[in-house]
Amino acid sequence: MTSQPYDDQNPFAKILRGELPCHKVYEDEKTLCFMDIMPMTDGHALVIPKAPSRNMLDIDPADLAAVMATAQKIARAQMKAFNADGIMVMQFNEPASGQTVYHTHVHLLPRMEGTKMRPHTGEMAEPTFLADMTEKLKAALV
Amino acid sequence: MTSQPYDDQNPFAKILRGELPCHKVYEDEKTLCFMDIMPMTDGHALVIPKAPSRNMLDIDPADLAAVMATAQKIARAQMKAFNADGIMVMQFNEPASGQTVYHTHVHLLPRMEGTKMRPHTGEMAEPTFLADMTEKLKAALV
Repeated sequence: MTSQPYDDQNPFAKILRGELPCHKVYEDEKTLCFMDIMPMTDGHALVIPKAPSRNMLDIDPADLAAVMATAQKIARAQMKAFNADGIMVMQFNEPASGQTVYHTHVHLLPRMEGTKMRPHTGEMAEPTFLADMTEKLKAALV
Repeated sequence: MTSQPYDDQNPFAKILRGELPCHKVYEDEKTLCFMDIMPMTDGHALVIPKAPSRNMLDIDPADLAAVMATAQKIARAQMKAFNADGIMVMQFNEPASGQTVYHTHVHLLPRMEGTKMRPHTGEMAEPTFLADMTEKLKAALV
């Protein structure tokens, strides 16, 4: 298996460099968590490594471990913040699996009994809505 | 957040104790990989920790890291073994998210361009088909 090269012009690389804004939830030495701007459920968050990698096929295992440790923190906070019934974790590798941004990221989707996911329409959520989700999630992390 | 207690009569606990068979792909000190008997795509594999945990909400971070390190090995092998175009990773926490077996597990689904996932009908794949997938995946791990 040969992995594709990393493109440092991808949106998440720009977020990491501060060239694009994000609704930041959490940050530590190796990882960053922010809200998905096209949430498939309320409270949909992303966790990414700070180090460059395209996806799980080329990421350093230590970065992957750090991403998942953060994902666990966030998932627990989502349960509390949104009174969720469950958390769906998704991580896509290459376009055939649904990957559209080529910096490793883990999707964390709060799920409620009887509530479907929204289709990925490409429509962005209202910034005020995202800001509200961010504050709720940050408060639950404390 | 209060986590549900771990039920050691779940099918994956039984697999770990050798009380149920599985199509084993890989095993190390902390993790086990075997084929999903109701594959949503060809080559659909599961990675589980050997230590008991219900899901990502209660798993020990060291076990989660070990599961993901194994998941990465398996994903790379799936790309090679099945000439896959991508790998979809899914991990469900609590029934509202799709969890049906209450021992932490990560789904690894090889994806091909233009090929849809099969619905989760509850129908088991032919043992000979699963055995063939297992051998292909094991060969790609070497």
